[in-house]
Amino acid sequence: MTGLFITFEGGEGVGKTTQTKIIAEKLRQKGYTVITTREPGGTPLGEKIREILLKGDIDKMSPMTEALLFTAVRRDHFEHVIKPNVDAGNIVLCDRYMDTTNAYQGFAHGLSIEKMESLYNLAIGDFKPNLTIIFDIDPSKSHGNLTEINRFEKMGNDWLTASLNGFREVAKQNPDRCILMPSEGSIEEVSERILKILNEKLGL
Amino acid sequence: MTGLFITFEGGEGVGKTTQTKIIAEKLRQKGYTVITTREPGGTPLGEKIREILLKGDIDKMSPMTEALLFTAVRRDHFEHVIKPNVDAGNIVLCDRYMDTTNAYQGFAHGLSIEKMESLYNLAIGDFKPNLTIIFDIDPSKSHGNLTEINRFEKMGNDWLTASLNGFREVAKQNPDRCILMPSEGSIEEVSERILKILNEKLGL
Repeated sequence: MTGLFITFEGGEGVGKTTQTKIIAEKLRQKGYTVITTREPGGTPLGEKIREILLKGDIDKMSPMTEALLFTAVRRDHFEHVIKPNVDAGNIVLCDRYMDTTNAYQGFAHGLSIEKMESLYNLAIGDFKPNLTIIFDIDPSKSHGNLTEINRFEKMGNDWLTASLNGFREVAKQNPDRCILMPSEGSIEEVSERILKILNEKLGL
Repeated sequence: MTGLFITFEGGEGVGKTTQTKIIAEKLRQKGYTVITTREPGGTPLGEKIREILLKGDIDKMSPMTEALLFTAVRRDHFEHVIKPNVDAGNIVLCDRYMDTTNAYQGFAHGLSIEKMESLYNLAIGDFKPNLTIIFDIDPSKSHGNLTEINRFEKMGNDWLTASLNGFREVAKQNPDRCILMPSEGSIEEVSERILKILNEKLGL
């Protein structure tokens, strides 16, 4: 029996982290074994590189260096957390994954999406999420729940708008895998919305 | 006027670091502006990742994660040190570069050389060293000048032999760019050997 790999994607401060925890709990109540994790991070190496990626000045490194670092820790995360748990029949809920690289470095920073996909294929291969829920938000309404400003949030409104449009583009280009979901509403309303999608798409 | 990018490659403890400094000094005496640098490293980000790559247990990360991390800091190094100096007309001498990834992760760890080259092309593009001097040594005689044992040196004799044979293979596959040079002899003898190659191949 193979498990499931479900990713939550979208801009900063749209509620992904909160929902990851809530949905995990709901699925556990239904009897599933659920692992929650995040990118960048999820392993000791990943968390170390997370610090390097998210802290400091905007121009600390270029988009291509970022994409390569994200991909390096994605590989580590894939090997040590994602694949073993999916192989063991568990449900893995991941807060950000490949589509953040597609939206941020690919669309918003102007590296081509083809280049980002080639990099992913080189590093990981064919393995992709079973389902990706993209938390959509109007660019003018984002920055709602931020507790700490990271390097990406410092990049300004043009970049922010480009990255949110990037996620919409990702959803458009991957209709079988991705669901673009409005992130407006109370925490409970959004949880219900996610659970409905998980039920319809994956029978959970 | 474009500068030159010259890389020194080979196993651990064969004298690359010592020779990089000596050759830089000799070229400066001839009137060239010479930059010495190294990989992994060469930039603040690179030096931070160097620590992560070289310290700790062998199985801290997989060969593919290593290759991606090496490539991430290679991109950073290329942007901030190598390209600006070559564009400014300087000579850049680099202690390890792409062929370490080809020999270590490609040949010795069994990731394909084609994969390593695709990764390099994705990250850097067409830019390659003008000349690469590979310090060759009999596997049984290496480990001569080691002051500190790093993660790769802990990998044992089979891996060591495979990596040294990997460098020989790199030289064979890239005859226009790479020179396989015996690294036996006194420091002065090896310096003379390198200076002769630089003169014959690049007119320095």
